[in-house]
Amino acid sequence: MRGHGSPVSDTLTLALVILEGIGVLAFAASGVLAGATKRLDVVGVAVIAFLTAFGGGTLRDVLLDRGPFFWVANEGWVWAVLVLAIVGPVFLRAQHIEPTAKAMQWPDAVGLGLFAASGTQVALESGASPLVSTLMGVVTAVFGGMIRDILVNDIPWVVSSYQLYAVIAFAGGWLVWGLGALGVAPVVAVAVGAVVAMVLRILAIVFNWRLPGWR
Amino acid sequence: MRGHGSPVSDTLTLALVILEGIGVLAFAASGVLAGATKRLDVVGVAVIAFLTAFGGGTLRDVLLDRGPFFWVANEGWVWAVLVLAIVGPVFLRAQHIEPTAKAMQWPDAVGLGLFAASGTQVALESGASPLVSTLMGVVTAVFGGMIRDILVNDIPWVVSSYQLYAVIAFAGGWLVWGLGALGVAPVVAVAVGAVVAMVLRILAIVFNWRLPGWR
Amino acid sequence: MRGHGSPVSDTLTLALVILEGIGVLAFAASGVLAGATKRLDVVGVAVIAFLTAFGGGTLRDVLLDRGPFFWVANEGWVWAVLVLAIVGPVFLRAQHIEPTAKAMQWPDAVGLGLFAASGTQVALESGASPLVSTLMGVVTAVFGGMIRDILVNDIPWVVSSYQLYAVIAFAGGWLVWGLGALGVAPVVAVAVGAVVAMVLRILAIVFNWRLPGWR
Repeated sequence: MRGHGSPVSDTLTLALVILEGIGVLAFAASGVLAGATKRLDVVGVAVIAFLTAFGGGTLRDVLLDRGPFFWVANEGWVWAVLVLAIVGPVFLRAQHIEPTAKAMQWPDAVGLGLFAASGTQVALESGASPLVSTLMGVVTAVFGGMIRDILVNDIPWVVSSYQLYAVIAFAGGWLVWGLGALGVAPVVAVAVGAVVAMVLRILAIVFNWRLPGWR
Repeated sequence: MRGHGSPVSDTLTLALVILEGIGVLAFAASGVLAGATKRLDVVGVAVIAFLTAFGGGTLRDVLLDRGPFFWVANEGWVWAVLVLAIVGPVFLRAQHIEPTAKAMQWPDAVGLGLFAASGTQVALESGASPLVSTLMGVVTAVFGGMIRDILVNDIPWVVSSYQLYAVIAFAGGWLVWGLGALGVAPVVAVAVGAVVAMVLRILAIVFNWRLPGWR
Repeated sequence: MRGHGSPVSDTLTLALVILEGIGVLAFAASGVLAGATKRLDVVGVAVIAFLTAFGGGTLRDVLLDRGPFFWVANEGWVWAVLVLAIVGPVFLRAQHIEPTAKAMQWPDAVGLGLFAASGTQVALESGASPLVSTLMGVVTAVFGGMIRDILVNDIPWVVSSYQLYAVIAFAGGWLVWGLGALGVAPVVAVAVGAVVAMVLRILAIVFNWRLPGWR
């Protein structure tokens, strides 16, 4: 069994569980939409939803040698993703909604912000340096979506889209660290970092902010 | 070094090693056939065979923080896979056998059943909950094949085939848990779960049982 | 936190850090070239550079349950890769250099030799058997490049190129083990294994040595 992280306040723990749970559901929804766009079967949609939802946090915890995993300690969220993966496609079909690649960007933006902030905070608490912690925030935020894209055989967004994506997760992580270093309570730092990253990502989608390219 | 799992009976340990070993060889054979179908070079075939054979069990043990790995504790199976990966292609060519994508389904079915059952039992023994244990069984059963498919640049079967595949592994895992909960000896529960999953998977191939799709 | 490996001499530790660091920069350079060839955005190039540079060593350390990771213990190399990933593309554009798939083979050969040798030595020190240690050397040497190729949606080189690649890493690992078994000092064994593997790989590129194929 992995050791638990350093003890932290119950309020922070509870807040992190709730924020990670919302992020899990948001990423699961983006996975369901990705699977639906590719016309995967019902089990394929569920597999993608699971991996997108839990992949990033699990890799972070393996890298930090930290446990138990979020989905082991909070099994309710696993059931919630299972329900979402089964009900989601049924709902989409009943409503004759044709999911597009664009639709999954919105829940993905919510997950990105939440996981970047919570992932950074979790790593900071385990004693990692600021740079390693913000990189762990990026891992938590982008790895699930990366698996999602590889599984449906696309070059992952995070490396190919010319969109502001991983860099927003990185910035959100540094914001969480910076606020904490200024003495802000961690729970506030995480909430602010998550909201700022989420809003930046949504603005990047809406206004089509682009990274510099090759020409 | 990772800690060992809880102590279990020597008979069960031996039975699990034998069952996992057969599963390893079956998945290695499916990897060799996949590599041959794609005309990979001899080293490529060996790499795919290794990852298909040992990928699922290794990821399970990393997630359960359990060790030593199957292939570290039972090095004979590594040599066996190495021999199979070298002799297999030579044999296929000598016999002028053209491997098809269909051929690799049969050894894959054997590996799926064995790994779903043994993976679930290993997780249950390490103290995981029934849901987490059956998910670990699914991970053990499908992850190796998923790497195999990603490496040859296909959308993995498990998410795209409309075949009963991951869901059979999931059902096999619940059967292992259920039999154990009813007081059946673990070694019997694993054997029954493995055979039932294997037979279900073979029936699914033969009768082309399909999952509900999008139309 | 993972336990540290067995104590080894300070000279060997320092030599390994320097050799791994050079390997990290070489693989990062190959990742930058791969990303540039595919016209990825600046963040995508950085993500590929990071994963190519640190992927193999990190997987090895997760599998060996060994810590802290190279990039956690030696954070300077993370900053170096970050700088390389930002300056590299700017330099390529300023010089009007069109990177080709062939160009990334040269830094990749340097990384392959260094990681095969150092990866094997690290595994031997942690108490793994010769076969497991050489396989860990192969994992260290090829996994980063494998992620790089999967991310840009190619069938990885290591399985498809018909080039002498993974097999050279395997041979380099056995050489490190063999020299050590003959009583050669580890630091010399690693240096010789790395140089031999590197030279073999470069000769394989230059003279286009091929593996036996299917026809």
